[in-house]
Amino acid sequence: MYYPEPISKLIDSFMKLPGIGPKTAARLAFFVLTMKEDTVLSFAKALVDAKRNLMYCSTCGHITDVDPCQICSDQQRDPSTICVVQDPKDVIAMEKMRDYHGLYHVLHGAISPMDGVGPEDINVASLITRLQDERVQELILATNPTIEGEATAMYISRLVKPSGIRTTRIAHGLPVGGDLEYADEVTLSKALEGRREL
Amino acid sequence: MYYPEPISKLIDSFMKLPGIGPKTAARLAFFVLTMKEDTVLSFAKALVDAKRNLMYCSTCGHITDVDPCQICSDQQRDPSTICVVQDPKDVIAMEKMRDYHGLYHVLHGAISPMDGVGPEDINVASLITRLQDERVQELILATNPTIEGEATAMYISRLVKPSGIRTTRIAHGLPVGGDLEYADEVTLSKALEGRREL
Repeated sequence: MYYPEPISKLIDSFMKLPGIGPKTAARLAFFVLTMKEDTVLSFAKALVDAKRNLMYCSTCGHITDVDPCQICSDQQRDPSTICVVQDPKDVIAMEKMRDYHGLYHVLHGAISPMDGVGPEDINVASLITRLQDERVQELILATNPTIEGEATAMYISRLVKPSGIRTTRIAHGLPVGGDLEYADEVTLSKALEGRREL
Repeated sequence: MYYPEPISKLIDSFMKLPGIGPKTAARLAFFVLTMKEDTVLSFAKALVDAKRNLMYCSTCGHITDVDPCQICSDQQRDPSTICVVQDPKDVIAMEKMRDYHGLYHVLHGAISPMDGVGPEDINVASLITRLQDERVQELILATNPTIEGEATAMYISRLVKPSGIRTTRIAHGLPVGGDLEYADEVTLSKALEGRREL
């Protein structure tokens, strides 16, 4: 035997998390033993609560503990703009910015024929339903700047065009603080293409 | 708001672990949402069980779920040798080696006047009590090769000397697979000092 059973079980549990190997798992498990019992209990409760009490918002698909989510039900937000993202974490990145006050729509993926993911596999149908709301004036396509993200943005944009709603794509270019010297060709070409009058 | 409450609580819990910052904590928390409910429940249970069901063996001080621990109560092991280590993790390192079949004694620290840790703050008194057992013939001092570990080994060795029990210190030298070129002076000097006839 190497470890007493309770600790080897805890190590196994930590090892199921991404990026945590046997050594880190053992270090974390031994650390748990030095934590206060209250802290450990609230950790265990947080795990179960997060798994049990979270769901996807039936309107926008963002992760939430109330349905519709706090963003969808916030009367202060501008219902004329919907920002389309791939992942709930993208909503959080946008919210951290504090510059956007419209609504969101989370696709939970992107179209990827290579992986067998078609338009029907991502949350597009409910987006089209939401666009029936006459208040929507602009759809910001903020999918990732990858082949799959671009394809998805293109697909949605073509789908929405006939309805007359304005569809925009977030800008591609050099990241702030980046260095021209180290930028890849595609980014640089996009940055040049998207140049604006000063 | 950035995160729904259940997930922000989970992120806070992960952030209490060593070496886990806000970004990693968020990544782990979102990963938990994709795990099966059973797996999450057993993770939560493992946390609570590890904290509640583990204790220190009253004999050797190793971490255990039964008292005395499996090593102390194993009749197959040789009671004539006790290996003194600083930490329960050191016992596990020794056990992984599979070459040692004696018993252990965990000090839970080392003498360090700088940090205000004296002999009475570590698990030495119970070691002396154990040495009353006439079967004990050798005490292997396997504290870390640091100033504190050396001081502790020296202290215990002087304490035990009068009783006539053989006290040995694990060897210092070049680690296997190491490179002479990169060895520090102290290690090299110890390796030379501890040279043996071939």
